[in-house]
Amino acid sequence: MDVRVGTGALAERLSNLVGPRASIARGVLDQHGQSESYYPTLPPDIVVFPETTQEVVQIVQLCAEAGMPIVPFGAGTSLEGNAACVAGGVCLDFARMNRVLSVHDADMDVVVQPGITRKQLNAELRGTGLFFPIDPGADASIGGMTSTRASGTMAVRYGTMKDNVLALEVVLADGRVIRTARRARKSAAGYDLTRLFVGSEGTLGVITEITLKLHPLPQAISAATCSFPTLHDAVDTAIALIQSAVPAARIELVDDVMMRGINAYAKLGYREAPTLFLEFHGSEAAVAEQAQTAEAIAIEHGGRGFAWAKAAEDRSRLWHARDNTLYAGLGLRPGARAVITDVCVPISRLAECLTETRRDADAHGFIAPIVGHVGDGNFHMLILIDPTDEHELAGAQALQARMVARALAMDGTCTGEHGIGLGKIDYLEHELGEAVGVMRSIKAALDPHGLMNPGKIFAGGARP
Amino acid sequence: MDVRVGTGALAERLSNLVGPRASIARGVLDQHGQSESYYPTLPPDIVVFPETTQEVVQIVQLCAEAGMPIVPFGAGTSLEGNAACVAGGVCLDFARMNRVLSVHDADMDVVVQPGITRKQLNAELRGTGLFFPIDPGADASIGGMTSTRASGTMAVRYGTMKDNVLALEVVLADGRVIRTARRARKSAAGYDLTRLFVGSEGTLGVITEITLKLHPLPQAISAATCSFPTLHDAVDTAIALIQSAVPAARIELVDDVMMRGINAYAKLGYREAPTLFLEFHGSEAAVAEQAQTAEAIAIEHGGRGFAWAKAAEDRSRLWHARDNTLYAGLGLRPGARAVITDVCVPISRLAECLTETRRDADAHGFIAPIVGHVGDGNFHMLILIDPTDEHELAGAQALQARMVARALAMDGTCTGEHGIGLGKIDYLEHELGEAVGVMRSIKAALDPHGLMNPGKIFAGGARP
Repeated sequence: MDVRVGTGALAERLSNLVGPRASIARGVLDQHGQSESYYPTLPPDIVVFPETTQEVVQIVQLCAEAGMPIVPFGAGTSLEGNAACVAGGVCLDFARMNRVLSVHDADMDVVVQPGITRKQLNAELRGTGLFFPIDPGADASIGGMTSTRASGTMAVRYGTMKDNVLALEVVLADGRVIRTARRARKSAAGYDLTRLFVGSEGTLGVITEITLKLHPLPQAISAATCSFPTLHDAVDTAIALIQSAVPAARIELVDDVMMRGINAYAKLGYREAPTLFLEFHGSEAAVAEQAQTAEAIAIEHGGRGFAWAKAAEDRSRLWHARDNTLYAGLGLRPGARAVITDVCVPISRLAECLTETRRDADAHGFIAPIVGHVGDGNFHMLILIDPTDEHELAGAQALQARMVARALAMDGTCTGEHGIGLGKIDYLEHELGEAVGVMRSIKAALDPHGLMNPGKIFAGGARP
Repeated sequence: MDVRVGTGALAERLSNLVGPRASIARGVLDQHGQSESYYPTLPPDIVVFPETTQEVVQIVQLCAEAGMPIVPFGAGTSLEGNAACVAGGVCLDFARMNRVLSVHDADMDVVVQPGITRKQLNAELRGTGLFFPIDPGADASIGGMTSTRASGTMAVRYGTMKDNVLALEVVLADGRVIRTARRARKSAAGYDLTRLFVGSEGTLGVITEITLKLHPLPQAISAATCSFPTLHDAVDTAIALIQSAVPAARIELVDDVMMRGINAYAKLGYREAPTLFLEFHGSEAAVAEQAQTAEAIAIEHGGRGFAWAKAAEDRSRLWHARDNTLYAGLGLRPGARAVITDVCVPISRLAECLTETRRDADAHGFIAPIVGHVGDGNFHMLILIDPTDEHELAGAQALQARMVARALAMDGTCTGEHGIGLGKIDYLEHELGEAVGVMRSIKAALDPHGLMNPGKIFAGGARP
C-alpha cells in the first residue's frame, strides 16, 4: 500500500464520479465506524453510496489505483466489527442499492441488491405466497447476511445463508465482475464460488447482486413456550425433538437470566427459568401433530406451563420478546455494553457446554444472559460490561476465551453465525489450524494487494 | 512437469512404501481408466491402494517429487470421465479406506473414509434409526459423491452433497493435511473450504475423511407412480406440488421412451407415457395427508392410474425400476453406449426445455430416453449411440451442445450433478465466463504444479 494517494485526491475523484453521494463529513464517517458490540469506533476516510454495479466497479478501480481499502456496509448490525475500518479507506454503503430486481414466483427465487433488509424484502414479497425465512433477529441487510453467513432462529428448518443463496454477482479487487452461478436450483459446474463468497466478509470482493431461494408461506404456524427446571432439561427436549424427525421451524432457548431481562424489557410475566420458544410450520394437520409430539416430549423432560400461541398476534408478541434479547439483555445493566459470544457445538455436548459456561460466568460475577439456537447447537452469552472499565473488558474477554476453548474441545466452532470479523481472528487459527493457510492463499490469489476489507478474518491490514 | 521421473522409479518407491498395494498390472490399470459413459479408456501408470491418511500424504509427496499426476478413484461410477487419467499418473484407489470411523447418534452425523459406498454406509447405520439419504442411483463411493457434488433422487427433500457434508480432511498437493471444519452443525468461521472441496473433482486435493449429516429414518414412507398425457402435464404437477409446500422426498420424471426401456428391462407393465415417481417421508398422518394432496394435484393436471406402493417390498420394486434407468435405457439399443446429459434449469422453464429437447432428439433420429429429478429442474437424456460410429457420436455431441445452449439460455447449468470432468470443460466457460478465471486462480494457488487430477474442470494437463 506504499502507492496510497491522499484521501483528498481520492475523495475528489469519487465526487467527480458520484457527486454528493461521496461524503467525508465527520458525522457520516463516525456513523459508519460504529459497532453494535463493544468495539471502538473505527471510521472510514470516505463514505460512498453507489447506485449501480458499474459505479461499484469504478469505485473499486479508483481505490485500487489509490491503494485505498474498500469496506462494504449494509445495515450496520454486525456483531464482530465486520465492517470496522481498521485501515480507514472507502466505505461502500449500499443504502441506495436496495431494490428487488426480479421475483420468480414459479421458481421460488428472487434477485436483490445487497442493501435491501430482510424485513423490506419480506414486505415486497407480500402477496406472492412466498417468504425469505432467514431471521438473525436484527433487520440486517441481505448483503451483510450473505457476507457473514448469517442464520438465526429458523436455521434449524430452513438452513443458513449458505443454503439459501443461489448465485452472486461480485466485483473483484481488480474491477472484474463475475456471476458465481446461474439460477438453476443446483449445479455441479466447477468450484462452488457462491459458497466461497458467502461468509467471506467482504475480504474477497464486493457483492452487488444476490439471488435467494424463497420458501412457500406455511399454511399454518403454531408457536409455544415451555419452561424447564434446568438448562439440561431444555436441551434434552430439543435433542429429542430433532431426533423424532419433527421438522420444527424454530427451537430457541432463553436462560433464566435472559428471561428476567425479557420480562423487564417487554413488561411480560414469564416464569424466570430456562425456557424453550418453539415454532412449527406446515399444514393445519401437520402443525397440530407436531405440536402434540413436542408437548409430550417436553413434559417427559420436566417441561412446565406449555403455552401455545396460534393466533398471529400472540405469536408476534412472543417472537418480539425473543427478537429483542440484545436490548432486553443490555437492560439488565443500564449503560452496559455486551461482549457477544457465539459458540456452536455438536448438540450432544450442548447441555454440558451451556451449563459449564453459565457456571463460569456466575463464578466470575458477570451478569451474562444466554440465548441459543439450540436446534443447531449454537448459543450466545451476552457478557455485560462497563465499557470504560478495562479490567471488566479483560475479564469478559478471558471468559469468552474459556468459552471458546470449551467449545473447540467439544469439536465445536468459535462462531456459529456472526463471523470472524475483528474479534475472533486468533480463535480461527486455534479452530482450523493449517486450513487458515489455505484461506490465506485464496485471499492472496483474489486480493493480492490486500485492499478488500483488510484486518477481517486475518490479522494485519492496519492503517499504515 | 519437466522434472517428471520415470514411472518405473516411482513405482519402485511406491512399492517400498505400500508393498503389493501398488500395481502396474495391465488389467488393473485398464480397469481404473474405464468409464460408465462413452469416453475412451484412459488408464493411470500406477494404481495404489492406500490404507491411511498418512500413506496418502507419503504418496502425494512422492508424486510431487516425481512430477506425477494424482487421480483419486472411488467406485468408478462417475459419468463425465471424472477419474480418467488424461496424463497418466498415479490412481489412488480408496477401496481399502472404506470404514466408518465414528457414528454420533445424538448429533446425527458420521465420519467415514472416502471409499465406503452409500449402500455400505446405510447398511452400517442399520439399527441407529438414522440414514444417509443422498441417492444418485449407482452405488457410488462417498468420496466420489463428495468430489462431484452428487445429488440424485432425494435432493428435492434432503439437498445435495454440498448440504450434507459437514467437514472434510484433505491432503493438499504439497502434502499438508487440513480439516476444513469442526463437527458443529453450522459455522461462520472463515471461508467455507468444505464447500470449496465438495465438487472440486480431486483437482484441489485428495479427500481422506468425510463427516456427513445423517437424517432420522422416517416413521412412514409412501411411494406412488402416475402417468400423464404429456411431459408438460407431468412437470406442471411437480411445480404445483413444490409450491404447495408438500415436502416430497422424491419427484422423479420418466418419459415414455424410458418407460418402454424400464418395462422391457424389469419385465413390468407400466403405461408407456410420461410418468412421475413420487415418494413421501414423515409421520403416518403427514404421509397420508401429503399423498392425498399429491394425488389431487396430479389428477388436476391430467394424471391417470395413480398407483400407491406403501409396503416396503412394492416400493423397493418401484425404485429398483427407476434406479436402473441407465441399464434400462441402454437396453433399448443393444450394444449401444450412452452420451449422458445433465442439464438443470429454473423449474419454470423445465417443461419447455424438456419438450424441445425431446423434439430435437426425435427429429435427429436418436433413441434418447429421458429421466429427470424434476423437483430440482434437473434432467438427463441418454443419447444412445454405436460407440464405433464417429458420425453418430458427433451427432449426439451436437445434440447435447444444443441441449446445453438451450439450458444456458434459460439461466440453467450444463451439469446439475455429474460434474464437469472431461466432457463439459467448454460448456463451463460458456456458463460462467469470467468466474472460471477465479476458479483457475484458486487452482493455481492450491496446486501450482497442476498435479491434482489434471485435465478435469479446466483444459490442459495432457500427457507430456
